[in-house]
Amino acid sequence: MNAERLVVIGGDAAGMSAASQARRLRSPDELEIVAFERGHFTSYSACGIPYWVGGQVDERDELIARSPEEHRARGIDLRMRTEVVELDVRERRVRSRDLESGAESWTPYDKLVIATGARPVRPELPGIDAAGVHGVQTLDDGQALLDTLRAAPGRRAVVVGAGYIGVEMAEALVNRGYEVTVVNRGAEPMSTLDPDMGRLVHEAMTGMGITMVGDAEVTEIRTGDDGRVRAVVTRDAEFPADVVVLGIGVRPETTLARAAGLPLGDHGGLLTDVAMRVRGPEAGGVVWAGGDCVEVFDLVSGRERHIALGTHANKHGQVIGSNVGGGYATFPGVVGTAVSKVCELEIARTGLREKDADRAGLRYVTATVESTNRAGYYPGAAPMTVKMLAERRTGRLLGVQIVGREGAAKRVDVAAVALTAGMTVERMTALDLGYAPPFSPVWDPVLVAARKAVAAVRATG
Amino acid sequence: MNAERLVVIGGDAAGMSAASQARRLRSPDELEIVAFERGHFTSYSACGIPYWVGGQVDERDELIARSPEEHRARGIDLRMRTEVVELDVRERRVRSRDLESGAESWTPYDKLVIATGARPVRPELPGIDAAGVHGVQTLDDGQALLDTLRAAPGRRAVVVGAGYIGVEMAEALVNRGYEVTVVNRGAEPMSTLDPDMGRLVHEAMTGMGITMVGDAEVTEIRTGDDGRVRAVVTRDAEFPADVVVLGIGVRPETTLARAAGLPLGDHGGLLTDVAMRVRGPEAGGVVWAGGDCVEVFDLVSGRERHIALGTHANKHGQVIGSNVGGGYATFPGVVGTAVSKVCELEIARTGLREKDADRAGLRYVTATVESTNRAGYYPGAAPMTVKMLAERRTGRLLGVQIVGREGAAKRVDVAAVALTAGMTVERMTALDLGYAPPFSPVWDPVLVAARKAVAAVRATG
Repeated sequence: MNAERLVVIGGDAAGMSAASQARRLRSPDELEIVAFERGHFTSYSACGIPYWVGGQVDERDELIARSPEEHRARGIDLRMRTEVVELDVRERRVRSRDLESGAESWTPYDKLVIATGARPVRPELPGIDAAGVHGVQTLDDGQALLDTLRAAPGRRAVVVGAGYIGVEMAEALVNRGYEVTVVNRGAEPMSTLDPDMGRLVHEAMTGMGITMVGDAEVTEIRTGDDGRVRAVVTRDAEFPADVVVLGIGVRPETTLARAAGLPLGDHGGLLTDVAMRVRGPEAGGVVWAGGDCVEVFDLVSGRERHIALGTHANKHGQVIGSNVGGGYATFPGVVGTAVSKVCELEIARTGLREKDADRAGLRYVTATVESTNRAGYYPGAAPMTVKMLAERRTGRLLGVQIVGREGAAKRVDVAAVALTAGMTVERMTALDLGYAPPFSPVWDPVLVAARKAVAAVRATG
Repeated sequence: MNAERLVVIGGDAAGMSAASQARRLRSPDELEIVAFERGHFTSYSACGIPYWVGGQVDERDELIARSPEEHRARGIDLRMRTEVVELDVRERRVRSRDLESGAESWTPYDKLVIATGARPVRPELPGIDAAGVHGVQTLDDGQALLDTLRAAPGRRAVVVGAGYIGVEMAEALVNRGYEVTVVNRGAEPMSTLDPDMGRLVHEAMTGMGITMVGDAEVTEIRTGDDGRVRAVVTRDAEFPADVVVLGIGVRPETTLARAAGLPLGDHGGLLTDVAMRVRGPEAGGVVWAGGDCVEVFDLVSGRERHIALGTHANKHGQVIGSNVGGGYATFPGVVGTAVSKVCELEIARTGLREKDADRAGLRYVTATVESTNRAGYYPGAAPMTVKMLAERRTGRLLGVQIVGREGAAKRVDVAAVALTAGMTVERMTALDLGYAPPFSPVWDPVLVAARKAVAAVRATG
């Protein structure tokens, strides 16, 4: 019998996890796998770029989980620097272009995986393309930024955007010895948190010597006669800059899918079923998609969201590879967990913010408590703030946000599991969480928040 | 109307939490509260004693959450150094003795809380009462040990028992500059883990310079002419010792309850319903019990267990105080979570070990994986071993054990919540746990273990 052909568009986490898992289940005699990647690298940790730029990771290659050669050695026909420029779902084929030679060709597929990732938001501003202005989405971006830092080791850096990429890049530039200013559209950093929790991040960043500018809209990147960046200009002010990093966020990269007529969601991402197969008749039931180019189902709100995160991309790839390879696996959805770090500050969230709950029509109570990561008497005990949202009447947990020091962020996992299980805050108060003085006060901060949330639920009735 | 009288026996975590919570709900006009404590202290963290002995905590009083004076200021009639010597459940009264004066008196109760704690196992061995041999159950014990260490700062310490108190005391004595030998009855330390995981603790302790002696039965404490300890003698060997610490474990202190005819469980602890009220007609429905003197329901095995742990005692007290005060709260049970630390090593467990599952008649698979606490490329990434037990066929999670470095222990909380929710390991593979390079590899170690457990469940059918 002739082997089926699987075509994979995109050589990073989702695409290559899918290819690898399919290969584990099906031999080359059964399934030919062709993967296209337009860049220079495969299977790398984009999430690690801030730590490479910041100097905690020495070598770019440490971020690469598996090289093109390793993939090829496992029987995947990987075509680097080759961009898929057209997807023809009717004829089940893709047109690709060799970015070195310019040569083009069509490749038919029996099964297709779309893993085209995301593209950074890049506002149309005067000077946005000036030398010294950098995105940090790909390894190539990271290399370019490092080249700038090494060639002209200035003193002042401006980060545009105070989401998780922005705050991680702020830390990286602090570590490189820069005076760092973060310019943010919203009043508080980390818009993935409620503003009262974002305020804590703001205060902590200020305490670390980072200048946080909120409610600021960038109108121009000012350049010098040499074409290099000189300053970031907002409506109200101008911030001198030797280097500028854009951390404004990303959008699903679905240009090919859109042109092919595949249905996209409200956030511009591909829509799939729980097996990660693209919905709708256009895809013919033989197209899967995963990673930063898809929308995911939010188990708490019951809506689709776009979340660009390596851990989801890897799970998607695993699920896709299992299903393409003849097995069965599902990705039931997310609860919206995210953790990040800026210097010594740990930031975490899961579930719904107040505005998410409002938007979903949920009535809720909130409870915010201050506690510590360890028993108060144990050395290194540091403060931690936990905010919890619970549904009125039912007491169902809706979300948790945490800002603190060492040991704060991963505590959010308790809430992530509780959300997945649909627990009430009352049930959470009895959770048997690990206790010993080096690890927790006798009441874990999450339990303290749950107790306060129970009282709030009872008080509102 | 005359106030009801609540009598509380025992002034530590469970008893005083119950008294405090009842006081919050009921004024002194409505409820008189009389509490008896035979020792010198109230509401202290016995779990903190190893860190006080080890020098990380400077002052004894840092371990005291609330002093007798503070309790009295809140309207609790607290009688220190007063031991309850008889409980008369028919007449609803207790006989107490002032340990200073020897005076005795009867106190009637309308409601009673028994929070008599646990007593350390103290084997009947020659020399067990010699100077230099110490338990570490109470603040008084801790003070006596510190006095020994300061008065005769020897070089060699022997810890008898390698459970969590034993390993924590080993760390404390290492911190004090002692050469530490831990003598254990079982082959491996931490019998709360399976032996294969205990083996990892053994190896790590050896690497820290602690001598671990397994399969060793202590037959004698050898003393010198001055009556001070000189050595710990086992069947096979003799270990010179300037100081000996007993960390053999504890039993429920239920002498009073037994004499009063209250029913006790297989482990010698009081038995309660979910509201923490003592079962059976003898108690007349007006007796509650909590903390180290009760047995708790294990949600995973469906059996009663005895677990002496401050976090449970505090929860019990909270629940008892709510119910005694006219509210409603329950303690549904435990899943058996415990975390501990010896030097840089973190140790955690929840749910069932292999032998617990065998005993309960459960068929299971195991999966053990090695991973890291952070992304492999992030500074400080350190190894972590996760072992997972899942039920055959159903794939229900049964237990998790973790041994690793920083960030390892509290990961067990994810499994504790999953056990509480009755999750399968397959469902766990999709958990949306926090990911960023400083906190986790892209697949959290718990997820990696769950994936391997899923494969094991499928393979066995």
